[in-house]
This record gives sequence, C-alpha cells and structure tokens, in this order.
Amino acid sequence: MGYADRDSGRAAAGFPSGHAGVLAINIKQKIEAANAEAFNRIVSADPVLVDIVPAGEVVPGLEDRMVLHSGPPVDWEHMGGAQKGAVIAMTIFEGWAGDIQSAEDILSKGGIKFDPNHHHDAVGPMAGTISKSLPVYVVENRTQGNRAYCRLVEDEQQFGNYSAGSIDGLRMWRDVWAPSLGKGVRHMGGLSLKPIIAKALQMGDELHNRPNAASSIFAGAMGVPMIEAGVPTKDLTSTLSYISGHDLLFLGLAMASAKSAADAARGIEYSTVVTAMARNGYEFGINVSGLDGQWFTAPAPAIDGLYLPGYGEGDGGFDMGDSAITETVGWGGFALGGAPGILSLVGGTPEEALNYSREMREITTGLSPDFAIPALDFEGTAVGIDIRKVAQSGVLPIIDTAIAHREPGHSIIGAGMVRPPMACFHGALRAFAAKYALE
Amino acid sequence: MGYADRDSGRAAAGFPSGHAGVLAINIKQKIEAANAEAFNRIVSADPVLVDIVPAGEVVPGLEDRMVLHSGPPVDWEHMGGAQKGAVIAMTIFEGWAGDIQSAEDILSKGGIKFDPNHHHDAVGPMAGTISKSLPVYVVENRTQGNRAYCRLVEDEQQFGNYSAGSIDGLRMWRDVWAPSLGKGVRHMGGLSLKPIIAKALQMGDELHNRPNAASSIFAGAMGVPMIEAGVPTKDLTSTLSYISGHDLLFLGLAMASAKSAADAARGIEYSTVVTAMARNGYEFGINVSGLDGQWFTAPAPAIDGLYLPGYGEGDGGFDMGDSAITETVGWGGFALGGAPGILSLVGGTPEEALNYSREMREITTGLSPDFAIPALDFEGTAVGIDIRKVAQSGVLPIIDTAIAHREPGHSIIGAGMVRPPMACFHGALRAFAAKYALE
Repeated sequence: MGYADRDSGRAAAGFPSGHAGVLAINIKQKIEAANAEAFNRIVSADPVLVDIVPAGEVVPGLEDRMVLHSGPPVDWEHMGGAQKGAVIAMTIFEGWAGDIQSAEDILSKGGIKFDPNHHHDAVGPMAGTISKSLPVYVVENRTQGNRAYCRLVEDEQQFGNYSAGSIDGLRMWRDVWAPSLGKGVRHMGGLSLKPIIAKALQMGDELHNRPNAASSIFAGAMGVPMIEAGVPTKDLTSTLSYISGHDLLFLGLAMASAKSAADAARGIEYSTVVTAMARNGYEFGINVSGLDGQWFTAPAPAIDGLYLPGYGEGDGGFDMGDSAITETVGWGGFALGGAPGILSLVGGTPEEALNYSREMREITTGLSPDFAIPALDFEGTAVGIDIRKVAQSGVLPIIDTAIAHREPGHSIIGAGMVRPPMACFHGALRAFAAKYALE
Repeated sequence: MGYADRDSGRAAAGFPSGHAGVLAINIKQKIEAANAEAFNRIVSADPVLVDIVPAGEVVPGLEDRMVLHSGPPVDWEHMGGAQKGAVIAMTIFEGWAGDIQSAEDILSKGGIKFDPNHHHDAVGPMAGTISKSLPVYVVENRTQGNRAYCRLVEDEQQFGNYSAGSIDGLRMWRDVWAPSLGKGVRHMGGLSLKPIIAKALQMGDELHNRPNAASSIFAGAMGVPMIEAGVPTKDLTSTLSYISGHDLLFLGLAMASAKSAADAARGIEYSTVVTAMARNGYEFGINVSGLDGQWFTAPAPAIDGLYLPGYGEGDGGFDMGDSAITETVGWGGFALGGAPGILSLVGGTPEEALNYSREMREITTGLSPDFAIPALDFEGTAVGIDIRKVAQSGVLPIIDTAIAHREPGHSIIGAGMVRPPMACFHGALRAFAAKYALE
C-alpha cells in the first residue's frame, strides 16, 4: 500500500488527510477493530424480560423526588412543552403535588431533580418520564450481563397530557397491569425477547412506531404464565384486555431490548459507533462508543409528518424521546422497508420505505445476522451507525417518530419522519479527533 | 359503437366472435352486471365466528359414517395417498375401525360415504376431512345470512398421517380446545373476523399459508372471553397454549370466512366469477357463479415448491385442499406481495411476490375496498376471478399451498406455488356458452 492509499485510508476514517504514515493506518485499523467489536456486541445481545417492578427498586441512582426524562440533560426552563406536561403529570402521580399549578410551582423552583434516562441504564418513549413508583420493564442482556429499563408506552401522559384520566392510566399500570405481568414474568423465569423481535420483523413491524405484531405475540405469551402464577381473575382479565388491545405495547420492550444491546457496546476505545440517539424536545443528542460519557447535541429538529385531525404543523413540538434507541440498533426507520403498514401513520411510499432501509447500509457497520427483512430478500437490518460514514456520506440516520404538541397538556397529535442534526456527528468527530490525538 | 366494436365486445366476453349484434351486447352487459353483483357480494361479506361445535350438529347433510373431503367428488379408488391416509385417520377417530388395516378394509368396501365439503357449505385444509364428531368453526356471513364451516388446521392428520399421535391431536381439539374456545365465542356473542383479516393483511399475512398475525390476534382476543365464560383453569391454560403457539390456526377461520363470502356469490345468473377452487389430490375443480352445482375439473397439478429435509419432488402428491377458497376471495397467492415472509416457505423473491399480486388484477373483477396491501401502496386485493379473463389472458390464478406426501401416513413435507389447469376454465366457458345459448 503506497502513501496515497494510506492517505485515502485516513480520509476513509473520516479525518483530515495529510498526516500520512503508519500512525494513520494504525488508527484506522484500531477503529475498524473497535467498530467490529461494537457491532458484534450489539447483534449478539440476548435481551430477556426478567421482571416488571417499580423503578425505585431497580433503576440505579434513581432518587426520591427525581424524574428521569428522555434525551440529553435539560433543565425546566429549556424543556419543551410536552416534556413539561409529562413531568407535571409525574409530580402529581407521585403525590409530590396535588394539582397542576402546585406541581408547576415546585418544578419551577427546582424542587424536583431531573436526569436523563440514559444516565441510569434506562429509556423512555417521548417525554420518557420515569419516577420511583412507576413500574419499568427490566430487560437483562444475557450475553453481556447488563440490564436496561423502560417504562410503559401509552398515548397520553408521555405526550404531555397531565389530565386526571391520563394519570389514571399510569395508576392502572402501577396497581394492576404491571404487578400482574410481573408475576407472570417471574413465574416463567423470564421471557426471551429476541425470538419475538425476529418474528415481528417478518410481520411488518419495525418495532418503533409499529410494534403491532410483537405486541400481539407478547400478549399471547403472557396469558398462561399469569394464570399459573395465580393472578386474581379480575386483575387477569383487566391485564389481558390491556395487553391484547395495545398495539404499541411492545415498544417499551423493544426500547429496553435495544438499550441493553447498545449499552453493551459503550466504552470501546477507538469505536466510532453510535450507542444512543435521544431527544428531549429541545436538543437532539448522540453518544458514541469510544467517547462514552459525552453528549454531542444540537437543536432538536421539527418532524416531517402527518397530523391527527384538528392539529397541524404549527402545533408540533420538536423531536422528542429515547425511542430512537431502536434505530440505534437497526430497527425503526432503519427497518421501514419491511414495515410498509406504518406509512399510513408517517407518510411516504413503499419504495421510499425500502430505500430508507437500503440507504442506512451506507452509514452502518454491518447487517444483523438474526434480524432479517423479507421484503429486502431476507437480508439483515443495518446495524452500528458509524459517525465517520455519516459525516462522509452526508446521509443522516432516518427515524420514524410520533409528534407531541409544543404546549403542555396534550396527547399524541401525529407521526412522521425525522433525521438528527449533522452537527451532532460533526461534534462527535471533533471530540474523537481530540481524544485520540488525530490532529 | 360499430359492428367491429360489438365483435370485440363479444370477444372480450370470452366467447367466439362472429355472431355480432344486439344479442352479444346484451349478454356482455348481463355478464358485467352479474359479475359486479358477485364481486359486491364477496367484498361485502361480514364473517363472524359464532360457534365451534361438532360438525354433526351443524353441517347440513353430514350423515353418520360419512367423511367429507376437500376438492371435487372422488371415490376411494381415485383418492390420492394423503387423502386416503386422512380418511383412514377419521375412520379410527370416529371409532368406526380400531386400526389402520380394518379402516382400509371398511373403506375399500364402500362402508364409509364420501362427499365434498363444498356440497355441505364447508371447507377443509389439505385432505380436508370432516366427520360428525370433529368440531368445526361456524362462521356466519352477517351481510347475506349464510353460514360456512371449516375444521381445525394442523400439520399431521390433514396431510394423511394416521398415527396414534396424529389422531390424538384431533381428540385434544374435540375434547378440550374446541369446547373451550366454543364457550368463549358464545360468551362474547361472536367474534367479528373482518377486522382481524384486514389488520393481518397489513402485518405480512396472506391468510393461506401465512396467517401468523391473524392467529396471534385471534389468540389475544380469546383469553378474556374464555375466562369470563368459566372455562376450567386446566382447559384454559391448555387452550391458551394451543392457540398462542399455533401460527397456522387462523387458516381455518380464514377459510370459513372466505367460504361464507364466496358462497354468497353463488348462483348469480350470467356471472362468470369463480366461487370455488378446490383439489383432492386427484383432480382440480372450480365452481362458477352462473353455473352453480357443476364442477369443472382436470387432473390436479404438481406443486413447484420447497421440501422439508428428507423429502424431495418424487415424494409429493398432487395439489390438494379446499384452502384455495382463500385465493378465490383474493387472499393467499393473490395477496403474496404483502406477505414476503412466506417466501422462506414457498420460494421466490419479494419482487415475484409483488408481481403475482399485480398479475391477478388482470383476471379479476375489482379490488377489495376493505383489504389493503401496504406494499402495493395500500391498494386492495384482487377479487372475483373471471373465467373469461383467465381464458383470454392465459393468466391462471396463483395459489400458495402446502405439499402432502403421495403415500398415506405422512405429515407435511413441503410448500410451494401452484396454478390450476387451464382446462377447468375452458370447460367452464364451454358450459357457460351452452347454458346461456351463446353459440
């Protein structure tokens, strides 16, 4: 290999060329090896649902009077309206305030501590709020041994709706559905999620905004264990009705599974693979394996989508939610080609959906050996977003997402497609160059 | 319109041209109107599962010591090996014989009466055998008021396996699963199947050899009603395990639904729309709306498919089963473009699957207003096979199907694609011309 090749090798690594030499080759090789390791850790993850218990009992570092939220760190002042609404709801749910006004008073005075879910091995959909009494799915990655947590998915409180009815939904989850499911899960000694995910990806799911098949399979799997665990009939029928009628239910499990896989790929020196994409309605942030502990953020983008009747573009808040952890491991927008049924929700044509999935191969490390998309000739989903490839190709990850209102107090108002700001990737590349002395 | 146009109108009706004139135009108009009526009856069907009870209690004309079978009429001598095996199993199941040898003796002496399912408002998968003690799904078409019946789907006895284990599966269905499900169905006052079918067609199902999503949704729908109906816990857990672990379960319900829709389109004078395609492993037969009560048959074709390990092309019997009733109403092979997951079972590429679905538009009367395929831009499935269009275009209906062994005693050995013999359609056209005095 001549100098010119070494230069292009360095350029291919995503860094300024010119300093040709052995150093560049070594670094490129180190990056490739590190990314291969990150890819392998993501695709070899073996997520198992082992419990469903109140977050305060299991989520590391979750304190009393603390609300975890989606996205990178943010304070009350900068939170988007929907996330504010969701935090108000949690403050009432926990009994820290009796009504909306007193909740706002406490929150605006800093009486409740905030922290990103991602700092606590957790993820949450949309506003993503988790507090101590809210039961979470506990997913153990049996390959690497780490655990990840996610809250329930619903279409009201997580979008900022703080009405009594919305909070009652959380109470049913806390008092009936989560305890009943938890009994079933413990009785069966854990439910392996990888087979459900693989099956669902062949049933038109992309596991982000369309986890319908996985939800249905999960519902089918939980009946017998709940009965055998002795769940009382009233709770049993309530819980079976809940899980068999909730198309989006599995999103919480998909997110916890994805988090357990992506976290296993954190902290690999020299790896340029993305380990999280998360948004709080104010900023979009990414984490990178070789730069663990740092957020690379930029203003959260608007969403290109379809609105429910009565709402329009002027109503939508900016991009929000930890749910892009599904795209981080190759589902969601990355698997859209296999899930054309979602297009009635987010817009677009089947051909565009297939092209999204093909396009994501340009910016990723490899194809999943286990998660095949029939519509793409049973080829695997694209896994392991490489910040170098994003910057070089100009192709940004594609995410399908729901839309929340820009003001507090509303339920879901739409859904669509969004891409992260390129600035997140450029910022990460600069930090990478600095940390690994590439310049 | 000039004479030349009248001639081409007559040609378009699928009959020899030359006798131009008002008569031809009138007949073409009558055919078009009749086919529009047939199409409307098929697509407006509203199938509701109203009960699951032993066939002898509900199937019209089903006598003691009678076995109903798939396809057109056939006698013991001409039955394929798999259907013979299945009939032997039913003879033992009903207690008419104690073992295989004595069953064969009775059958070869004409001791058991045979009749096609289709002569009794019924359908059955593969060998399709139904006898008095075997519980059937009772599906009522609430739009037109007719009822249709189908037996359970499994992968042993219906393929000709007459082993004790295979027959034990029927006994579990008779003694535990069907009675438990029946209690649930009656408790809920019937389960509407059209919404499940519509949903499943957006989840990668084609509802013939891939009814996985519909099966899962059905399983989710049955838990609460069975509990509320007081099904004993042991039967409940057994039945929930059965239905939530049986990907092909819904095929029986899809077939009964399809039969209830297609039967509603029978007997419309002048209609050239196909109301049944059915095979017994010896002959392929079709029924036509305007020629009700007649079978148009030709030798059953071989299947182009993939075999399970240990089996090859020399082992396969000829095409068999009433399950092509699903294609008759626009599912199965007609909806393959939306179900690429099935290709691992039957072979082919996603593009071929899409082309099958597009091709079927050439030989059908219209597109379903209710059953949309996301991968085809949410356009409806092709419905109402027109024997004129088949003959003129040379395009034969496409059917995906399982493969049974050519000898008795085996379970499923493979799956693939098949088309009916053109002779069935030519025969029907000749009969049509004769009946309606077109020549």
